[in-house]
Amino acid sequence: GDPFTVGGETFTSRLLLGTGGVPSLEALEASVRASGTQLVTVALRRVEASAGGAMMAVLDRCGVRLLPNTAGCRTAREAVRTARLAREAFDTNWVKLEVIGDEHTLLPDAVELLDAAEQLVAEGFVVLAYTTDDPVLGRRLADAGCAAVMPLGSPIGSGLGIRNPHNIALLREAVSVPVVLDAGIGTASDAAQAMELGCDAVLLASAVTRARDPERMALAMRQAVEGGRQAKLAGRIPRRWHAEASTSFAGLPEL
Amino acid sequence: GDPFTVGGETFTSRLLLGTGGVPSLEALEASVRASGTQLVTVALRRVEASAGGAMMAVLDRCGVRLLPNTAGCRTAREAVRTARLAREAFDTNWVKLEVIGDEHTLLPDAVELLDAAEQLVAEGFVVLAYTTDDPVLGRRLADAGCAAVMPLGSPIGSGLGIRNPHNIALLREAVSVPVVLDAGIGTASDAAQAMELGCDAVLLASAVTRARDPERMALAMRQAVEGGRQAKLAGRIPRRWHAEASTSFAGLPEL
Amino acid sequence: GDPFTVGGETFTSRLLLGTGGVPSLEALEASVRASGTQLVTVALRRVEASAGGAMMAVLDRCGVRLLPNTAGCRTAREAVRTARLAREAFDTNWVKLEVIGDEHTLLPDAVELLDAAEQLVAEGFVVLAYTTDDPVLGRRLADAGCAAVMPLGSPIGSGLGIRNPHNIALLREAVSVPVVLDAGIGTASDAAQAMELGCDAVLLASAVTRARDPERMALAMRQAVEGGRQAKLAGRIPRRWHAEASTSFAGLPEL
Amino acid sequence: GDPFTVGGETFTSRLLLGTGGVPSLEALEASVRASGTQLVTVALRRVEASAGGAMMAVLDRCGVRLLPNTAGCRTAREAVRTARLAREAFDTNWVKLEVIGDEHTLLPDAVELLDAAEQLVAEGFVVLAYTTDDPVLGRRLADAGCAAVMPLGSPIGSGLGIRNPHNIALLREAVSVPVVLDAGIGTASDAAQAMELGCDAVLLASAVTRARDPERMALAMRQAVEGGRQAKLAGRIPRRWHAEASTSFAGLPEL
Repeated sequence: GDPFTVGGETFTSRLLLGTGGVPSLEALEASVRASGTQLVTVALRRVEASAGGAMMAVLDRCGVRLLPNTAGCRTAREAVRTARLAREAFDTNWVKLEVIGDEHTLLPDAVELLDAAEQLVAEGFVVLAYTTDDPVLGRRLADAGCAAVMPLGSPIGSGLGIRNPHNIALLREAVSVPVVLDAGIGTASDAAQAMELGCDAVLLASAVTRARDPERMALAMRQAVEGGRQAKLAGRIPRRWHAEASTSFAGLPEL
Repeated sequence: GDPFTVGGETFTSRLLLGTGGVPSLEALEASVRASGTQLVTVALRRVEASAGGAMMAVLDRCGVRLLPNTAGCRTAREAVRTARLAREAFDTNWVKLEVIGDEHTLLPDAVELLDAAEQLVAEGFVVLAYTTDDPVLGRRLADAGCAAVMPLGSPIGSGLGIRNPHNIALLREAVSVPVVLDAGIGTASDAAQAMELGCDAVLLASAVTRARDPERMALAMRQAVEGGRQAKLAGRIPRRWHAEASTSFAGLPEL
Repeated sequence: GDPFTVGGETFTSRLLLGTGGVPSLEALEASVRASGTQLVTVALRRVEASAGGAMMAVLDRCGVRLLPNTAGCRTAREAVRTARLAREAFDTNWVKLEVIGDEHTLLPDAVELLDAAEQLVAEGFVVLAYTTDDPVLGRRLADAGCAAVMPLGSPIGSGLGIRNPHNIALLREAVSVPVVLDAGIGTASDAAQAMELGCDAVLLASAVTRARDPERMALAMRQAVEGGRQAKLAGRIPRRWHAEASTSFAGLPEL
Repeated sequence: GDPFTVGGETFTSRLLLGTGGVPSLEALEASVRASGTQLVTVALRRVEASAGGAMMAVLDRCGVRLLPNTAGCRTAREAVRTARLAREAFDTNWVKLEVIGDEHTLLPDAVELLDAAEQLVAEGFVVLAYTTDDPVLGRRLADAGCAAVMPLGSPIGSGLGIRNPHNIALLREAVSVPVVLDAGIGTASDAAQAMELGCDAVLLASAVTRARDPERMALAMRQAVEGGRQAKLAGRIPRRWHAEASTSFAGLPEL
């Protein structure tokens, strides 16, 4: 129908999932299947932990592609090193690049992020960069060769949705690579709004994994992402200050 | 799965459509089918017009139930009279009650609306009342015996979405009959938000009929209503001021 | 400078105060003076209480006009009766008409409110009607002869500000009598926004009386109301999607 | 009363003005006087233009301190060079550092900005850095020795107000140097909101210079900044979901 291409690969699902916060392997598998996702991001640190093998088995069984991330890295140096290790561990040159500038908010550090992105692109990585909603930084990441720019709607895990839709729209105008809304999604309407703003896809984790019913929320997000995408393509009505009667006969001579 | 009951009838679709503004009979049929709706509201005035018969034929072919409305009525007296005529014309005692207080905004007139609702309930109608987002008026309509309360998100045809989510949530708390968000929806995320606020269903017309691609927007709205409903049932994460790492290991010893 | 006329009386202050929630008589006097208000609303019930005389003495000393209100009334009948008693007790035919439809939210009851307004106008009262933000109800109250329409921004004491600026602006367009934003103000920017939306004045109580420092907040509200009024008169710049350099030389040949 | 200290200098006004867009020297003088500002930012390029001398004379007559800016600079190199020239031209080591990353939005370039800030601090400048609302970048600028961090509310000249209050509040928490809201202010309530979010001051230009009546808007902004500051200090009431009667007698035994 309406495929989404990033890094030369094409996906029919526009919903990417993270695994952080998932309450059980059963919930993980149910959520992944309900979401229809084809791309799941995993932290190297998590997978190296004792139960990592079991999680990998679940994801393998679901047939999803893995997107290693550099969650928890604070400097370009640390992120580059983690990306290299992940490349070995997961046998993929794709990486979701995270360079965090603050423990409290987990917001990205613009300077370290751009530095890491340039290095990783030079080393042949397919870099999907988690970034602020700053359109200029987004364009610099795209210019540096990132395969996708992934702006946050609000801080990771906050569930505050898209705090600045204006910036997301400006960023969308500023780059030609895919834009994936990443972080801050709390509920289905947030995901739909991301797509309506022109994002190509949505990545979320805790909105699903920490919901009361993760599997059901995964389904909700799938529907919302698809609905938001269709609405964007369908061309919404303009906003009007005053009402316009929907039962008007004006311009409708044939009915 | 998750049926919706109003006036003693049960529907599997939670999306109601209006026909106002539809560009052609073909677009009408395609939109109705894509939306999955089972309940379509029609204005008596429209149906009495020359092409009304053709429209009825389309809706009949789609197998939807008709919900006559009193669009354009300005007083209780006029609305009651129109409802009676519609009952004869459409052979149904269901009515979407509209009593408009202003030509400019098409906003409801609280006093005339409540008066008409009381009369129509007394005459045995199943009344679905189009109203403001005022929780007190909503409760009075429910107390008067309306089968559903249908608050506006914003003026008809404005596409401004839900201007006062707080009032919709308060109204939802205030009544036990179904609440159907009616008017103001502009795009898919608006419809999802209505469901997340606890509405039982969404009614929209121009958001679909006047979209650039009505059929596609009808599909988008269907997905958004279902997604919003599932998200409500799934129990969203709380909003937090600060971030919470989704890749935290806290409380996840088994992974 | 910029006087405000209601009920045939002219005021230089556009800030009206309520006394509910005030922690002490000292705080009341300090707040009234800092606010510059010339019109203070008082509940008959409060004044009849034991300490009411002391409060009256304070307000008298401050030289403000009293505006009795019908706080706590639930029906037109009760409100009309209270207004009559207040007329005797305070020797004024002015009344701030409140008819509450719900204990939980203290939101007005549209039908009882309009009924009471019509009766009180017929009895020669100068009626300032506390109402929802519904533009149609506002116009009906104005048509009924109310001297001012006083829409809420959000529920009394909620501090949620103006939840639906669109409705306040529509109501402002709909009536020619003064519009006074009443209820919901939480902080100074809310009061400024009310004036920018075209309101003629602002009435607030708990935002001042329950602030940590009531006197200072009274001053803040005075400045915000004046600033908002001046901004409205000054003609703000339009909102633009993209930036416009403020240091551009375009069109400025003389500098 | 409530002075504001930056770069070792203390000001009684918390409103900073820019001159861009001003329609005449008369309007400039009237606006500066009405605003009460003590600090006015000027672009070197503007002052070097033919009429610059006349503008300087006006500002000198008003007794305001000048804050040269690097408006229009695209790289750290260019900004540093401009700052040095401005230091000579204006005989001050203060500079409002602007490094623009995009002609369309005039948004700052995070990387070049931080680079320029570090250089200028090392050269002994008192740097007030115009930046995005990114809390991490703000903290890095403060750590680099900037005397103040000046986040935008929305793009320069857009009049869109503060698009992301959450980020401004997070940035305020993140740094101990003064925070000055710079860019995007459209009207008085925007300026009041900035102060309520904890900003120490507000800088604006086109909101005043391009208003229909600049002098009156300058007064409005002065009142709003003062009102917003007082409201912050006064301690606003909490936001509540439901109403709380302001005429309740609870806790008020003495009245």
